[in-house]
Formats: sequence, C-alpha cells, structure tokens
Amino acid sequence: MQVIAEVIGTYFLIFAGCGSVVVNKIYGSVTFPGICVTWGLIVMVLVYSVGHISGGHFNPAVTVAFAIFRRFPLKEVPLYIIAQFVGSILASGTLVLIFDVNEESYFGTVPVGSNVQSLVLEIIISFLLMFVISGVATDNRAIGELAGLAVGMTILLNVFVAGPVSGASMNPMRSIGPALVMHIYKGLWVYIAGPFIGTILGGLAYNLIRFTDKPLRELTRSGSFLKSMARENTT
Amino acid sequence: MQVIAEVIGTYFLIFAGCGSVVVNKIYGSVTFPGICVTWGLIVMVLVYSVGHISGGHFNPAVTVAFAIFRRFPLKEVPLYIIAQFVGSILASGTLVLIFDVNEESYFGTVPVGSNVQSLVLEIIISFLLMFVISGVATDNRAIGELAGLAVGMTILLNVFVAGPVSGASMNPMRSIGPALVMHIYKGLWVYIAGPFIGTILGGLAYNLIRFTDKPLRELTRSGSFLKSMARENTT
Amino acid sequence: MQVIAEVIGTYFLIFAGCGSVVVNKIYGSVTFPGICVTWGLIVMVLVYSVGHISGGHFNPAVTVAFAIFRRFPLKEVPLYIIAQFVGSILASGTLVLIFDVNEESYFGTVPVGSNVQSLVLEIIISFLLMFVISGVATDNRAIGELAGLAVGMTILLNVFVAGPVSGASMNPMRSIGPALVMHIYKGLWVYIAGPFIGTILGGLAYNLIRFTDKPLRELTRSGSFLKSMARENTT
Amino acid sequence: MQVIAEVIGTYFLIFAGCGSVVVNKIYGSVTFPGICVTWGLIVMVLVYSVGHISGGHFNPAVTVAFAIFRRFPLKEVPLYIIAQFVGSILASGTLVLIFDVNEESYFGTVPVGSNVQSLVLEIIISFLLMFVISGVATDNRAIGELAGLAVGMTILLNVFVAGPVSGASMNPMRSIGPALVMHIYKGLWVYIAGPFIGTILGGLAYNLIRFTDKPLRELTRSGSFLKSMARENTT
Repeated sequence: MQVIAEVIGTYFLIFAGCGSVVVNKIYGSVTFPGICVTWGLIVMVLVYSVGHISGGHFNPAVTVAFAIFRRFPLKEVPLYIIAQFVGSILASGTLVLIFDVNEESYFGTVPVGSNVQSLVLEIIISFLLMFVISGVATDNRAIGELAGLAVGMTILLNVFVAGPVSGASMNPMRSIGPALVMHIYKGLWVYIAGPFIGTILGGLAYNLIRFTDKPLRELTRSGSFLKSMARENTT
Repeated sequence: MQVIAEVIGTYFLIFAGCGSVVVNKIYGSVTFPGICVTWGLIVMVLVYSVGHISGGHFNPAVTVAFAIFRRFPLKEVPLYIIAQFVGSILASGTLVLIFDVNEESYFGTVPVGSNVQSLVLEIIISFLLMFVISGVATDNRAIGELAGLAVGMTILLNVFVAGPVSGASMNPMRSIGPALVMHIYKGLWVYIAGPFIGTILGGLAYNLIRFTDKPLRELTRSGSFLKSMARENTT
Repeated sequence: MQVIAEVIGTYFLIFAGCGSVVVNKIYGSVTFPGICVTWGLIVMVLVYSVGHISGGHFNPAVTVAFAIFRRFPLKEVPLYIIAQFVGSILASGTLVLIFDVNEESYFGTVPVGSNVQSLVLEIIISFLLMFVISGVATDNRAIGELAGLAVGMTILLNVFVAGPVSGASMNPMRSIGPALVMHIYKGLWVYIAGPFIGTILGGLAYNLIRFTDKPLRELTRSGSFLKSMARENTT
Repeated sequence: MQVIAEVIGTYFLIFAGCGSVVVNKIYGSVTFPGICVTWGLIVMVLVYSVGHISGGHFNPAVTVAFAIFRRFPLKEVPLYIIAQFVGSILASGTLVLIFDVNEESYFGTVPVGSNVQSLVLEIIISFLLMFVISGVATDNRAIGELAGLAVGMTILLNVFVAGPVSGASMNPMRSIGPALVMHIYKGLWVYIAGPFIGTILGGLAYNLIRFTDKPLRELTRSGSFLKSMARENTT
C-alpha cells in the first residue's frame, strides 16, 4: 500500500540522515562529508526501493508541488502528508531512544546565521531539487532508470552547499519530526516556508522550459548535446 | 559453480571490507569515511561480478530471508552458509597473515556501548538492507540493472550511521570469521541475532507493501512519481 | 526554451560549485574533497535535468568546440554564450548577497603558482573533459544513459588533480562571473585561453581516433574489451 | 585507431592518478581518500570514453590476461604494451615538467613494508580487478553498460585497502613510467610480477566458475538473486 511505503520510506530517510548527524555529534568519526553522503544515498536507495510503489516523495513540499502541477491526485495529498509526518516522528523517537541525545547533539535544523539567510538558501536548494525531479522523472523525454541517482545526488550536493548554514532541510518533515520530539522550535518556520516556496518555483521553472521548448526544439534538433541519446531512450 | 562463487565473493567482501579497517588502524590514512566507501563498493562490484551466477548473497541472513520468502531453494541454504563461512575464515586468516594484527587493530565487530543498543541498530540497518534488496531485486516492477548500485550504497550509508556504535555488521559472517581467527567473542551473539531478525522483518515489510498495493495502485496510477518510468522498464 | 535552460543550468552550476567554495572558506566543514564532489555532482544532475533540452553545455568552451566539430549550429553560439554569461553573473551576485564574501573567501579562480603552470593544467584538464564528452555523447557507438555520470565524474576528478594549483576552472564562465562581481581579475586570461585551447584539442583528438579507427576496427573485432557490449547498446 | 586510444587513455590514467598523488604531497588538500576517488573515476570515465574503441585496457597485465583467455588477439599484445608504455612515460614526464617533483613528492609505488607483503597484496587486488573485469565485461549474461562503473569502483576500493601498504599499483605501467622518469627502482619488480600473477589467476578463477556453472544453474534457476534480471538484460 502506497501510504505504508511513504511511512517506511520517510522513517528510514529521517533515521539514516538524522542518525548520521547524531552519531557524528557523539562519536565524531562520520565527518560532515559523511553526513552529506548519507543523506544523498538514503534518498537514492529509497527511490529505487519504493519509488515504483508510492512515487518516493517522503517530503510534503514535493507532494504538494506534484499536486499543483497535476502530477499527483490532490485528494491523496493529506494522506501522504500524514504518512510522512508519522514516519518522521517515529524515526526521531527511535533516535532519541537509542542515543543519548541532548541539545548539543540535536539532529534538527536551526539557522546558523540569520533566518532570512537560511530561508533564501532553503528556497534555492529546494528549487534545484524540484527542478531536477521534474527533469528526470516527469518528462518522458528524459532519462529513466537514473532518476534515483540524479535526485539522491542533488540532495547530497545541496547538503554540502547549504548544510553548514541552514542545515539543508529541503523538507518540512526533516525538520518538524526532530523539533517536536526534542521541543526545539527555533526558526522552524524557515524549514516549512522555504521548501514549499522552493519546490513550487522549481516545478514552475521546469514547466516553463518544457512547454515553450517544443517549437524551437524542432528547428535546432541537429545540434544539442544529449538529444539523440534521449530520443533513443524514450522510443 | 554457484557455491565457489559464494566462497570467492565472501572472501573478497571480508578481505576488502575488514582489510580497510586493519589498514586504517595500522596506517591511519584510510579514515572512517574511506572504510564506509570500501564496504559499499566491494558489495556493489561483487554483485555485478557474480550476482548472475550465485545471486550474490555473501550473507547467511540474506540467504535465509530469501529462503523464507520462497525466493531461494531451502535445500541449498546449508551449502551457501558453509560457502560463506569458508570465505570469511579464509579472508580473516589472510589478513592476519599479511598484517601484524593485534587486539588494537582487531577488524571484527564489538559493541561500543551496550549490547542492546547495538542489537537494535543491527536490526534496523539489516531491515533496511533486506527492504532495499527486496525492492530492487525481487520485484519485477522495480529497476533492474541498478540493483548492485542500490544494495552497495545501502551498505555504505548503513556503515556511516551505525559503524561508530555497533560496527555495522549486518552479516553474521562478517563478524564470525574475524572472531574465530582472533579468538575475540565479546558480544558476538549481537551480530548473529541482529542481522537474522532484521532481514526477516525487512523482507516481511516489503512483501506486505507489495501484496496489499495492487488494488489501490490501479486507482491512482495517474500520479505517482516514477510509475510511468517503472512501467517502461519492465515491459 | 533552450536558452533559458542554459541560463538556469549555468546559474546552478556556479551557485552550487562556487557556493561550496565560499561556504568552505567561511565555515570550514565542507573540506576540499567536498568541493570536488559538489562540482562533479552538480554537472551530472544538470546534464540529466536539461541535457535533453539544451544539450547541457553551461560552458562556452564546450559550445564553441561543438560548433567547430559541427555538432552544434554556429549561429546559436552567441545566444548560448550570452545565456551562460547571464547565469554566471546572477549566481555570483546571489552568493555575494547571501554570504559575507571578501577577498579571503573569494570563490573565483586565481593561479596559485605561475600563470604558465595553471595555463598548462587548464589545457590538459579541459582536453580530458572534451575528450570524454565526445566519447560518451557524440559517438553513437558509445554508452548513452551514463553520459551525465561520465561527464560529471570527469569534472570531479579534474578538480581533485588541478584544484589546489589552478582552481580547475575548465570553463571561462566559472571564472568570469566571480571575477566581474568581485573585481578580481588576476590571471583571468588563463581561464579564458586554457579551456578554449583544451576543449578544441580534446575534440580534435577524439575525432582523430574515431575516423581513423573504422577500417582497423573491422579487422580486430574479436578482441576488444567492451565492443560486444557497445554494439548491443546501440542496436 | 585503437593504439592511439590506448596511448591517450594510459596517458590520462597516469596523469590524473599520479597527478593527484603529486598534488597531495605538495599542497596536501587532496587527502588519501581523494587520491582513491581520482584513480577510480579516471578509470571509469576512460572506459566509457574509449572502451568501445580500444577495449580500454591501459594495463599490460590486463592485456596479457585477455590474450591468454582468448579474449584478445595475441599478435596485437606487443603493440598495446608499447602504447601503454608510451602513454605512461609521457604522463610521468608531463608531471615532472609541471610540478617541482623530488624524492619526497615521488608519485611512483614503493613497498612501505617488506617486498613480500606488497607482492601478496598486489596479487590479491589484481586478482579481484581481473575477476570483476571478467564478470562484467566478458560474460554476456552479466550487466553491460555498468561495466565501466564496476571496474572503476574496484580500482577505487583496492587503493583504499592496499594503497597505504603497497601503493596499490595493479598495473606495471603505473609503476614503470614514474620509476624511469625519476630513476627510482626500489621494489619495482613487485609491481611487474604482482599484477601479472594476479590478473592471470583472477581470470582463471572466473573461467572456472563460468564453465562449471552451466548445468547446475539450470537446476536451480528458480532461486538466485539477480538471475531473472540478468536474463532480461541479455535477451
């Protein structure tokens, strides 16, 4: 059932991603690059595991953006968001039970600088995330089997760029679960507003490129880089 | 012959993975992230090398879970487990012969905290491992050629999350070989019980999602993320 | 529209790549290997996202080399270069607005040693970049879907090799945008001349191999490594 | 022409791989994991670039092993070895010209411990290399397009395991070029004998599994891991 897949998927996303943060804060050996790799790979392997069942969102901002651009039925949105919420709370609770978590080893996201700086960063990286998702997953001209790789690696690089500043959430549930379990709400609105604004703008931008592209594309088909390839893959 | 493939595969799994641990303890330059990468990649390349011959288990917990869910003939289970045992012992012995291994540079797994903490972690990460294996390898709707990548990267991220605490075994033979060769048995039962419980629960969870999924899936086919893609790949 | 795709693509290339440099200089946790990974992955995910629309150049040296070898219409070259320029300037400006950038945390490229040393390095790594692009993207015998992976990983390794010396630009727009925004022009000509010379020579070398290859190839078809595979993929 | 492809391929293999060693010794920022990644990725991208032209050996031990197992015409072996030699010498010379290389920043391979220890390690890791190459490239039941990834990642993990001890050459030309250019011949025979012995044994082991496998495989086809998948890919 799709909803259970979203619960399990979001559970492991938060467990592994936030788990690497906790373990690094307590034991130190993971290192920040290791945290980035963990976030990227858990998204990739979950998309490959349950993507064909639930779509592999694990993120309410992605679910809502898909619904807005008519790639996901509106009436299922609340169920998906509840599933993602349950997964995030369960995973955050598991981490608190297994590890001796305190404010020092908090695994949620808190702006390191100003709220506005983190908000802008969250919008930009969520834009990129949704732009890539749209490019690899919703456009039948694009690559297929590598969608999980592309989406996971986008998460990975976004954590490298924004992690030390905003925490690189891109996902309200990545921030809400830890916040509720640890009762730390500082700057939480940033990680709700940022991802929603970013994913909607990112989806919008991709649709803009896609729809206005068709006529011009016919005229210039001789030249572009991967075009012949892309066509082979989709036929 | 399948059994020889399992011996060679398990040999190189233990040789490379545990070898990176030994070399890091003696020479220092590998670093913990390097150990994670080595474990992930050796699984990936071995699945690509002998997966089409023996199935590429290298892990009795995976073999048993496959047998339980009728994806592997029960009567071959003992032979596979013997093959994996032989590979693990030979690799552990090789490492002891090549390197000057003592208790400080031990390459087996020992709980850093309590046994229960490590047991819970081993169950969770073995659950994820079997869940991903089931998602990418036993379900004909899912991706095919990238199974080795997904399984290897699951190992890699699991070592990042659980490595500093439980050692991230996920595989009884990864712990039994070094323990027997070095005569260090502290907490060894954790690495036998944990992986078996975890992989069986993980396989169960995936089967639950798969079987209850079908009717609901028909109703919502318009929306989900990678569905169109997945369908293209399997037809 | 292709041109908008190039603007957005170049924007995110510069934002993520140079962003990782700035964040590392201010916060320190990214590390140099993290910067290398960010540059490689952003190229990979952008090729997968918009490669089928605009070709995914994001680099005037690549655009010009394609045009010279008749893989891209000459009359579109100026438009592409303008699009790449706009993307680079916008991304550099965004970074200056978000972060407190000064000369210490400059994210452009400046030769660490002599100009000639960096020029030679830029020529060699741009040669390799164009050689790989030609091998995976313009030759219909070669692999298809993995082109984005191969090109991105070439960037990644080139940054490892040349990053500490020349900055590993390979792309005039990667250097011009930051230079204009921060008014630091030291050695800038190196990053204009080097990439153009390197990509043209690299494309030339690949064409040389490809065209003189055909007759000899027929004679020796029994032996070479991936040949049977390559043929299966293209038919 | 195949031979030119081998010259260029070996040139960039040595330039990038040994280049990362030199740059790390002089500037320090690459780190040992960065060197491992560079070696792995350069092999991967070169296999994808010229693998369909020359087979992408870049290594006389691989060329000879292929010839022994009748996967490569014997009469072309000398030409390939000369091409690899030329590429290695040119790349080593380039590095000496660009960088201020002395004995401290030597980029060849020298046993850190005893010669015998390094010899054993070189044999084992070359065995694994040839075993993986055979599994992914010469067996038409196995995966196709991911061969470059699997071979490159085998190099990467082998450098992690053996790099700090033997230098992880696996390739006589990776050691001969730097040795000749810098006149440092200590332990050089280890890197000629080890790779040849290892690749021949590795190819032998894979052939053993493959040929004795067929009858047993028919009997157990219901169970193994990736079998259904593998069959889909090859038909």
